[in-house]
Amino acid sequence: MKIGVLGTGMVGNAISTKLAQLGHQVRMGSRTADNPKASDWVKANGAKASHGTFADSAAYGEILFNCTAGTASLEALTLAGANNLRGKILIDIANPLDFSKGIPPTLSVCNTDSLGEQIQLAFPETKVVKTLNTVNCNVMVKPSLVPGDHDMFICGNDSAAKARVTDILKNWFGWKSVFDLGDITGARAMEMFLPIWLRLMMKFQTPSFNVKIVKA
Amino acid sequence: MKIGVLGTGMVGNAISTKLAQLGHQVRMGSRTADNPKASDWVKANGAKASHGTFADSAAYGEILFNCTAGTASLEALTLAGANNLRGKILIDIANPLDFSKGIPPTLSVCNTDSLGEQIQLAFPETKVVKTLNTVNCNVMVKPSLVPGDHDMFICGNDSAAKARVTDILKNWFGWKSVFDLGDITGARAMEMFLPIWLRLMMKFQTPSFNVKIVKA
Repeated sequence: MKIGVLGTGMVGNAISTKLAQLGHQVRMGSRTADNPKASDWVKANGAKASHGTFADSAAYGEILFNCTAGTASLEALTLAGANNLRGKILIDIANPLDFSKGIPPTLSVCNTDSLGEQIQLAFPETKVVKTLNTVNCNVMVKPSLVPGDHDMFICGNDSAAKARVTDILKNWFGWKSVFDLGDITGARAMEMFLPIWLRLMMKFQTPSFNVKIVKA
Repeated sequence: MKIGVLGTGMVGNAISTKLAQLGHQVRMGSRTADNPKASDWVKANGAKASHGTFADSAAYGEILFNCTAGTASLEALTLAGANNLRGKILIDIANPLDFSKGIPPTLSVCNTDSLGEQIQLAFPETKVVKTLNTVNCNVMVKPSLVPGDHDMFICGNDSAAKARVTDILKNWFGWKSVFDLGDITGARAMEMFLPIWLRLMMKFQTPSFNVKIVKA
């Protein structure tokens, strides 16, 4: 199918590459139509790969991935255009990490609000589904990089959209376990997981880890 | 040994009871010397159990546990008295949960600060060690309630104090794995884990779960 991936950084590259490998037609979107990282990605990924502006990518995709930097996501999605987002599933992977105060970064929104909620509020006719933001981008599309059982989370207001994205996580990316945390306010919990993820990453000196929920 | 447990709620009760079962002399502390919950606990836990004010408990204990409600912890510790806290290890279990806006609660401090840091700043001569706040109180003192391997976190500025508390977690409470997240700023990460813990608790309808860190 036709998929729009907004963002040309590590996350956008990892998601786009996996989707292209699966045989999908992927259009990577960025602020400008001549982004060199997007151009390089297209050259490396064959005839079904293309790139353009955020609006080009959003108009093209039947399903969209938000892989932009969290602090720039609302602006990027505004550039993508509400008309191009309307009625579509937007898989929101972004984390609102603010690096301006040093490392580890803080969150630019949290606790009583979240980026996922802000996106859903700004684009009420788009089906925002938050997921994948709790792991490194290579683990997102190849969970077997972390051995054994471990878990992914998902949240959003539209049950059918969550079911579709859960299917994508399991059958395209290889996730075995996806926990539904409820409506889009669950994005607060998923984004506030980042501080402990970042501490563990600094401790382990590798991003190839995840959590498994263990229960009685 | 003599241990002071500040707080008479579910957490203080679970910690005090476990310590008493291990043969320690435990003094539970509360705002008033005649707290009925503390009195009932003493009656149920034998000759080595006692109770008093926060100051009585803090003066008595060689090691102290902060089991007060997080939004009241700084006031409780002020009542306990800097003189009674000086030079001692304070194991901070509290979470700054604000229930005033409904369920799930928000955090009264997070992101650029934490309760653990606020306590350490207010009582610089006390060795604040944050731990146990990421699991239910019954799991804190009996991790085997959750089957299989799962992990505890710890942070604090004093390495010797963290080593002592890690020993307590492992040898008194039965924890097999304790991850050191660094200095007391790690409390931001540990307290911001609560939103996802609360979502999972609502989903599972049981607090008997924990996370296991899985890595390559």
